[in-house]
Amino acid sequence: MKKMNTKRIRPLTAGYALLSAGCFSFITSSSDAQADARQQRPNILLIVSDDHGYGDWGDALKDASMPNLDRLAASGIHFTQGYVSAPICSASRLGLLTGCYQQRLGNFWYGDGGMATDEFVSMPEILREAGYATAMIGKVHLPGVQHARNFPLHHGFDYFYGFEGAAKHYLQHNAAAHESFQEKLLKYHPEKKGYPIVFNQPMQVNDSRKDQEGFSTELFGEQARKFMAQADEKPFFVQLSFNAVHDQTYQLPPEYLKERGIKPIADWDPAMQDPNTFNDKALLPDCAEARDYLLGQLNFLDIEIGRILDFLDERGLRRNTLVVYVSDNGGSLANGSFNTPLAGGKFTLFEGGIRVPFIISQPGTVQQGMVCSNLVTSLDLLPTFASTAGVAAPELCDGLDLTPLLTGTDLSVGHQTLFWDVGQQFAVRAGDWKLRFSETTGRSRSPAGLGFQLTNLQDDPGEKQNRIEEEPEKAAELMKLYRHWRAGLE
Amino acid sequence: MKKMNTKRIRPLTAGYALLSAGCFSFITSSSDAQADARQQRPNILLIVSDDHGYGDWGDALKDASMPNLDRLAASGIHFTQGYVSAPICSASRLGLLTGCYQQRLGNFWYGDGGMATDEFVSMPEILREAGYATAMIGKVHLPGVQHARNFPLHHGFDYFYGFEGAAKHYLQHNAAAHESFQEKLLKYHPEKKGYPIVFNQPMQVNDSRKDQEGFSTELFGEQARKFMAQADEKPFFVQLSFNAVHDQTYQLPPEYLKERGIKPIADWDPAMQDPNTFNDKALLPDCAEARDYLLGQLNFLDIEIGRILDFLDERGLRRNTLVVYVSDNGGSLANGSFNTPLAGGKFTLFEGGIRVPFIISQPGTVQQGMVCSNLVTSLDLLPTFASTAGVAAPELCDGLDLTPLLTGTDLSVGHQTLFWDVGQQFAVRAGDWKLRFSETTGRSRSPAGLGFQLTNLQDDPGEKQNRIEEEPEKAAELMKLYRHWRAGLE
Repeated sequence: MKKMNTKRIRPLTAGYALLSAGCFSFITSSSDAQADARQQRPNILLIVSDDHGYGDWGDALKDASMPNLDRLAASGIHFTQGYVSAPICSASRLGLLTGCYQQRLGNFWYGDGGMATDEFVSMPEILREAGYATAMIGKVHLPGVQHARNFPLHHGFDYFYGFEGAAKHYLQHNAAAHESFQEKLLKYHPEKKGYPIVFNQPMQVNDSRKDQEGFSTELFGEQARKFMAQADEKPFFVQLSFNAVHDQTYQLPPEYLKERGIKPIADWDPAMQDPNTFNDKALLPDCAEARDYLLGQLNFLDIEIGRILDFLDERGLRRNTLVVYVSDNGGSLANGSFNTPLAGGKFTLFEGGIRVPFIISQPGTVQQGMVCSNLVTSLDLLPTFASTAGVAAPELCDGLDLTPLLTGTDLSVGHQTLFWDVGQQFAVRAGDWKLRFSETTGRSRSPAGLGFQLTNLQDDPGEKQNRIEEEPEKAAELMKLYRHWRAGLE
Repeated sequence: MKKMNTKRIRPLTAGYALLSAGCFSFITSSSDAQADARQQRPNILLIVSDDHGYGDWGDALKDASMPNLDRLAASGIHFTQGYVSAPICSASRLGLLTGCYQQRLGNFWYGDGGMATDEFVSMPEILREAGYATAMIGKVHLPGVQHARNFPLHHGFDYFYGFEGAAKHYLQHNAAAHESFQEKLLKYHPEKKGYPIVFNQPMQVNDSRKDQEGFSTELFGEQARKFMAQADEKPFFVQLSFNAVHDQTYQLPPEYLKERGIKPIADWDPAMQDPNTFNDKALLPDCAEARDYLLGQLNFLDIEIGRILDFLDERGLRRNTLVVYVSDNGGSLANGSFNTPLAGGKFTLFEGGIRVPFIISQPGTVQQGMVCSNLVTSLDLLPTFASTAGVAAPELCDGLDLTPLLTGTDLSVGHQTLFWDVGQQFAVRAGDWKLRFSETTGRSRSPAGLGFQLTNLQDDPGEKQNRIEEEPEKAAELMKLYRHWRAGLE
């Protein structure tokens, strides 16, 4: 066993102060719970949010709160250095699904092929094979949706309720609204430019599309609870992927806006404006209300997390359900998200693009109320879930089984090195050091940090200083690691 | 035709001042010579020296002179920005031989496979196929000599006189001396550590090894003249690859040392010292005489160049022979070489490791007495020779046909970008800018320049300043070019 990495883990609240680093494995009744877990394999609930910024939660969220996310964190481990494998949704979700750097599947940026090959085993395939009832609820957004295997029912999910694309209208989910918008749009721009204004298609429910009424965050939460309620003989694996807090955050229940006196934005009307003009504002609301919209979405997201936790508590499932919360990438600066104290945001390889809210909880099994700074990544979830289900992870897997860290038997578990590459940007982190490169300036509201940057994240978490000239040895070491990793992908 | 790049080319001496940039194509009798060339294809003499430093010639060579190399330059074009594709002998020679970045053949550093594959066509194969009599005289040093195709007679040479390895004793070329040394060495170090002290094997003459008497520089010059003298019906292609001025420069004719009062170093004697101690001194003569030894080798090299030029003049072959002079890489700082005003030396990707003395001459056809700063490289020689021979270069070729530049019909010919990669170091040059990276500090006497460096070579030819932080756009642009090139190698 490796040396315990005690400096990186601390109790979250004073109430847990008794649990010093040396006695993590003596949590009350944890051994009982583990015995139960051996008898009945734990359920797994993976909650994935969309573009939830590192700073838009907890102490950093100064203009609002997410009490239910706090409640989840207090019941488990809050990872302060939890990463995803990409700063954009589609690539990140593919890494999460396969436990592999998605570049191994040829995926770097939007439009790459997704699960085009059978070579890689998916998280739900492993869990279904292990006897789990599996459900995908919400946003899929695998790259290259044209490949049949990218459809959730084709990569291991028994049940699918949600949408395949990048975004979903929060309020409209019916064919009539969708057709009406597309019709207007075609008239305006026959070449379909501006298409992504509104994704108000009906929900995909398994093989068919169904008109639905309601707010997407609530609909997804409800569906997850329904599925979990029905599962009885088998343990369940539910991936609950909210579209909150992705673009179009202005799409909030009218009564919410009214109550708070927040100015609404009407959906696009061709009589009023060019679709691209609207698009710019709706997707990237550079307006006084931008932050208010985002806080609205966070509010509903938190409420839904609360309902899920209440459900698990009420059903007595909490201690036998491993609950994970992770965002698919960093907050988008364009929609008012904060990644404080990190630099940059979605689309970039600054910490703000790739370090995300990351919580793992299972009272009685996983350490409770802990804050842990070990380097972990969404790629670790597949092997950790496999371990939870008592089966082997696939041979081709870049993640670590976090179980020994979660249960306190080996606090040193974590990555020494992590890598990112979206084609036009790459980064490597080794220990506290990070080398970052971008060949583009990035989008105007998310500058990618052109050129090379070497940072010591311990000294400079906001990536303000570039030490590439000052520390050539470190730069060389990191570049060597990156090149080795890059060469080994193929 | 591209715009003439007049600023990059200037007459070498006042005598050529009449030849302004605008009238390069009106050199006396050049059109006659070109007509002759069409009737009878020019011979090609490629002189390759070993580790000849950029600063160890011409005005920069303050402590000696190479009048015959000056004479060659005055009769042709002196390229001030002529490069090789590697800062070490073996890889550089493979690039020269194939006209391809040797990385395409999997060759980055010592020990890679050389011409292991038949996929790449060699320079002598093209010329032999075009009807040339071909000879390889001197040092081969292709990587991975174990592959049959690395032997000169197996890649297009009709005749071979020289040696296959990295180095040759300048004075001893006989089996008895070689065996005696190996015997002593085996006694001292059964594991053969220290083996490369002395390569005093006999000369390889086609299929057999023959004991020879004489100084290697003179022997190689003599053999080249002999071959050229015999060639009559066919045009000839001779690659004359001197081992001067590689390591062990102390191995000079005793009378030369005596005349100048330079202290000799005796070859290794096991009774006197550990072979590695000797090795350090003999290969890397960190002693007061180091520069004197090197100047001695340069002196003999220059004399031999003079004999070759005299031979061509006397036989009336000069106007019908394309003569090229190039070093295989930059000067080795370890043996007293200078690369002034460039930084670094052999083994490194500083300019001193890869920018070399580079001359092309054919009076009456090639511009005379010109100094040209266009970016050219040893990879250009294969397509230029193919053009000279009136045949097509292979499809897979990274070089440019320099003929239009040489004859003054298009002075813009030259590379916009050049790339280097030896595994642990890479570099890219685009226009005046260069991005360089090394993951090693390099050998103690040839520091490789750890980490990243961005330089504007126009402003800073000695690579003193690192502008990587100041010019992130330029760094990104160059890194992008490098990554694209690197990805395209396979």
